[in-house]
Amino acid sequence: MARGMSNAIAAVILAAGKGTRMKSDLHKVLHPIAGRPMLMHLLGGLAGLAPAATVVVVGDKREQVEAALAGTGAVVAVQEPQFGTAHAALQAKDSLAGFDGIVLVCFGDCPMLTAATVLRLCGALDEGAAVAVLGFRPTDAAAYGRIIADADGTVRKMVEYKDASDAERAVDLCNSGVIVAHAADMWRLLEAVGNDNAQGEYYLPDVATGAIGEGKRVRVIETDAAEVAGINSRAELAAAEAQWQAFKREEAMAGGASLRAPETVWFSWDTEIGRDVTVEPNVVFGPGVRVADGATIRAFSHIEGASIGAGCEVGPYARLRPGAVLEDKAKVGNFVEVKKAVLGKGAKANHLSYIGDATVGAGANIGAGTITCNYDGYFKYQTVIGERAFIGSNSALVAPVKIGADAIVGAGSTVTRDVMDGELRLVRAEQSVKPGWADRFHDAMRKKKAAEKKA
Amino acid sequence: MARGMSNAIAAVILAAGKGTRMKSDLHKVLHPIAGRPMLMHLLGGLAGLAPAATVVVVGDKREQVEAALAGTGAVVAVQEPQFGTAHAALQAKDSLAGFDGIVLVCFGDCPMLTAATVLRLCGALDEGAAVAVLGFRPTDAAAYGRIIADADGTVRKMVEYKDASDAERAVDLCNSGVIVAHAADMWRLLEAVGNDNAQGEYYLPDVATGAIGEGKRVRVIETDAAEVAGINSRAELAAAEAQWQAFKREEAMAGGASLRAPETVWFSWDTEIGRDVTVEPNVVFGPGVRVADGATIRAFSHIEGASIGAGCEVGPYARLRPGAVLEDKAKVGNFVEVKKAVLGKGAKANHLSYIGDATVGAGANIGAGTITCNYDGYFKYQTVIGERAFIGSNSALVAPVKIGADAIVGAGSTVTRDVMDGELRLVRAEQSVKPGWADRFHDAMRKKKAAEKKA
Amino acid sequence: MARGMSNAIAAVILAAGKGTRMKSDLHKVLHPIAGRPMLMHLLGGLAGLAPAATVVVVGDKREQVEAALAGTGAVVAVQEPQFGTAHAALQAKDSLAGFDGIVLVCFGDCPMLTAATVLRLCGALDEGAAVAVLGFRPTDAAAYGRIIADADGTVRKMVEYKDASDAERAVDLCNSGVIVAHAADMWRLLEAVGNDNAQGEYYLPDVATGAIGEGKRVRVIETDAAEVAGINSRAELAAAEAQWQAFKREEAMAGGASLRAPETVWFSWDTEIGRDVTVEPNVVFGPGVRVADGATIRAFSHIEGASIGAGCEVGPYARLRPGAVLEDKAKVGNFVEVKKAVLGKGAKANHLSYIGDATVGAGANIGAGTITCNYDGYFKYQTVIGERAFIGSNSALVAPVKIGADAIVGAGSTVTRDVMDGELRLVRAEQSVKPGWADRFHDAMRKKKAAEKKA
Repeated sequence: MARGMSNAIAAVILAAGKGTRMKSDLHKVLHPIAGRPMLMHLLGGLAGLAPAATVVVVGDKREQVEAALAGTGAVVAVQEPQFGTAHAALQAKDSLAGFDGIVLVCFGDCPMLTAATVLRLCGALDEGAAVAVLGFRPTDAAAYGRIIADADGTVRKMVEYKDASDAERAVDLCNSGVIVAHAADMWRLLEAVGNDNAQGEYYLPDVATGAIGEGKRVRVIETDAAEVAGINSRAELAAAEAQWQAFKREEAMAGGASLRAPETVWFSWDTEIGRDVTVEPNVVFGPGVRVADGATIRAFSHIEGASIGAGCEVGPYARLRPGAVLEDKAKVGNFVEVKKAVLGKGAKANHLSYIGDATVGAGANIGAGTITCNYDGYFKYQTVIGERAFIGSNSALVAPVKIGADAIVGAGSTVTRDVMDGELRLVRAEQSVKPGWADRFHDAMRKKKAAEKKA
Repeated sequence: MARGMSNAIAAVILAAGKGTRMKSDLHKVLHPIAGRPMLMHLLGGLAGLAPAATVVVVGDKREQVEAALAGTGAVVAVQEPQFGTAHAALQAKDSLAGFDGIVLVCFGDCPMLTAATVLRLCGALDEGAAVAVLGFRPTDAAAYGRIIADADGTVRKMVEYKDASDAERAVDLCNSGVIVAHAADMWRLLEAVGNDNAQGEYYLPDVATGAIGEGKRVRVIETDAAEVAGINSRAELAAAEAQWQAFKREEAMAGGASLRAPETVWFSWDTEIGRDVTVEPNVVFGPGVRVADGATIRAFSHIEGASIGAGCEVGPYARLRPGAVLEDKAKVGNFVEVKKAVLGKGAKANHLSYIGDATVGAGANIGAGTITCNYDGYFKYQTVIGERAFIGSNSALVAPVKIGADAIVGAGSTVTRDVMDGELRLVRAEQSVKPGWADRFHDAMRKKKAAEKKA
Repeated sequence: MARGMSNAIAAVILAAGKGTRMKSDLHKVLHPIAGRPMLMHLLGGLAGLAPAATVVVVGDKREQVEAALAGTGAVVAVQEPQFGTAHAALQAKDSLAGFDGIVLVCFGDCPMLTAATVLRLCGALDEGAAVAVLGFRPTDAAAYGRIIADADGTVRKMVEYKDASDAERAVDLCNSGVIVAHAADMWRLLEAVGNDNAQGEYYLPDVATGAIGEGKRVRVIETDAAEVAGINSRAELAAAEAQWQAFKREEAMAGGASLRAPETVWFSWDTEIGRDVTVEPNVVFGPGVRVADGATIRAFSHIEGASIGAGCEVGPYARLRPGAVLEDKAKVGNFVEVKKAVLGKGAKANHLSYIGDATVGAGANIGAGTITCNYDGYFKYQTVIGERAFIGSNSALVAPVKIGADAIVGAGSTVTRDVMDGELRLVRAEQSVKPGWADRFHDAMRKKKAAEKKA
């Protein structure tokens, strides 16, 4: 989708606003949708343009944005103080010195913008427009700025809601704010924007107004409201999440996964899910999960950073944490937590266990209540369990420790030394028996209880 | 919001109906919304009026209502037998002997009535009306009684649906039943109500009809349908719960909490939730929960009667029961139950544990599978764990017992005696080893299995 | 509801389609709704007709359908190759040789068809029609075939969407495909159907067209769109599930169960739920569950094949698997799994336990972290716990084993031999104490950690 050298695209992302309606110490554009910060969704969407450069204009909480951008190739420009959106966009000029392609200005809190839409905008420039703006028709146009345009998309006027006449307000084509122009046009028009308005701010739509004033053509390209809906509050964030999830659920079902109650399955932005996968109600996928064909994810499972092989059965109430790898037909059952551990083919951990920093061989059976004691308060240690080994219930395996192939660990054992292949290891104290003791205890306690009640 | 002495308000709450559509042994007005009985919601709403007196008229299952009212200051009046709503309201007269302010009649199964709305009703009396009735315009007016009124709110006629003409049925202003009048008017008009109708009952709206007949002014005040929707079935109860939850979720988000999937978070009527709190999908808050700023409540957590400090991390699958107190930055992880226990600053119980009747010092680490054995079948006992103590996995701490600061309990230990500061306590039997035993066992069992299949 | 001999009904169910949009290795008609395969829903619905015979026409993945039909009395007929729906229906003719009642043709992927609707169709035959077809009026008629009929239901024309005129497309009465005729009429008309169309297929609606051509009367009977909606994709399957669940939830509430958040409770097709049962949010019922009056099912519970007695308390986070029987007032609490086990009256297993292949006596108390070790990797064994026995926390009961009435098992015990009535059994090693050891360990580890950081 990348464009040629002569008309390469540079993206300017505005992210300097205070985002006060979020009531958060976290920068607005770093709040996540589907487990991924808004800003990263936007960068991901724009990646399809292979942008020549990406400049994020920051102000408030800038260090958070800078940290998030580490390694992405995007650079930051600082807007300080903040005099409006046109002023913000202009702060990117120095970072783009020498760039003579198309400059796209978009918004960190409108994270669903796609490369395809930007390419349609750029197409308007290719066809002779000096500036192209992105419009949309929301269900409720409310107080959005309006775009007054001819049927062929030629923009006659950009008008803020508060300045609009009744006739202009009746127009339902609204301004998303997203705008493109060739670099020379963009910088010249941005510099020409004035602040003669009630707020004393420099407004980005005046770039289009300026171009019209110069007698140049400005075109509007339309897109869905959902793509350009700004996120300014936690409620709008939740709505964007819901919209994203609905889309992803449809996609999973179309690909051959059965979601019995789709509205109760939460995917992450990068969840990969196979064919003939069954997902029961109430499953949460965190980032980094891959589920192979034919696996079953039962209700109330919580899965992050895990790879689930073909035909595996997971849950109900399974918690797979990062580094959990289930090879084909492995089973992880109820109230079992798996972290940084590989379960070999057909291995089972069906009940009430913690398997961390471990390798479990193919066909091994981890009994109910097994704990790998992987931590001493300072360091983590490995547990290695051999193929077809049988770990008796309620065992504690004190890492580092190795259980051999076909070995058996007796129920209730705390194992601190390696167990060899085919060996039985039992850790068991003598059973001490006190006949009649329980009866005497019951008598005494009942008396004590009765005495207490009287008192 | 309380009104002066001369125009104080007394509330009469009708709760004598049988509520047969609930199909329940529990009185209808005691069914809960957001963890609080309907009747208590209504009393809570009316508390804003600082009512001079509150009389609840009871009939069927009256002892349940009386028990629920203990300590609230409300009194009960008994309607027995039950001859209709006007007859019910009249039963409150003796309890309000000598009261000469405004009498409000409302309904125990319409629990969302607010003080603000009642004050608007009373305002109509202040402006000269003898009676004021509360109207609403539902989406489907169905069989509600209609209020025929002028544009200025002057009521011309109250009409039951079955007696209404087609023109009257076309009116969408419906009668909620809620009504106010000065005491003398109310009692006189109630006593004048007749029962010359198909059911032979005394109907409350006839109070308004009577006032009109006396040539007095009756006014209608309107409110939202949601505020006066009656709850007569479990389905309507669920709808009221849904409406309450939707409101509370919006409020939490507006206050700066992130609810990734708001529709899956259930609050209680008294949940307090801070700023920059993150709540993952599927979290249930029971009564008595406070969550401080910056805490994270992960998916599938169930929290009742608990206090969660700043920056705490709870869940997924954490169950906090009444008396759980998490100081700042404490962590309670998956499949962990905490009851009547304080976790000090930064203390961790991350996996598969039961912490009951305990105090856990700051920075202590409770290993996976730890159980505080707090109960002997008759009494409960305390476990005290010192600061920075490390409890090895799969340990049982038999209360009453004390683990010192910086002490270590070895994995798999059953601790029955106190452990001193900085001490290591290990409870461990000898490991008995049987080389080759497991191999022989596997052979024998496979043969047995094969023999069984043949048979 | 069965009809007499002379007008008995035989059902022909078409299930030969490839169902490619499901993207599944499982035959489309075997995908479940509410835990029951579509085809079984349909057979269950038709059972009300006491059909003289049921023939399922299969093609692709036929062996799966044959296996599912084992024991139902239905027979299969094979359509191979597949030349359209009329051709499919005709494959049932041999199986119905000699049958001279009414032949119903319906569809395996329209599983919600009811006996009552089929009887209404047959009624049209009783009143003289030669053929009766089932019509519906969907919200979006889309590309469904249209039925052109008089006001009295006399069908004038059956028309495929692609062949329909604009006027015909404006008709919103659509063809469900379901059709009835007396056997002789049905076979004759099916055999007369041609394949002179774009696809070269034999279409079932041409049976009606043929009857009209013979001058016979064809009638349309209407039903709700929901009853005849075909299921062709996972999304449509999820929509059918949602519709079924909504219906069942309403039914449960009308019967006197409180569902705090009905949209989060998933029933199975056969769930039986009593009066004054409370179900908290997020509960999944698998097949084979019965809940008696007054029981409480708390949040996040997962229940399959279980019987829950009056006044029981289950959950939160309780997992009851097939064979779990809770007698009255038993309690199963958080992170507890029960499988093939009976809990006697008032018995409790409140925390973090696995109770499998067991009998627990009335009033017994199973401590937190108790595991019945029922499996040795080859066979399962029984645990029997007596009345009022007290199993201390973190115990492992190695089956086969018997704990007597009123007996006590000390916390942390691994019990391998029977415990007699009223006896105390303790399995406990010596506590070894190392004063100051923990302090020295902490020092050493802190140094090691610091060294690692430096490196």
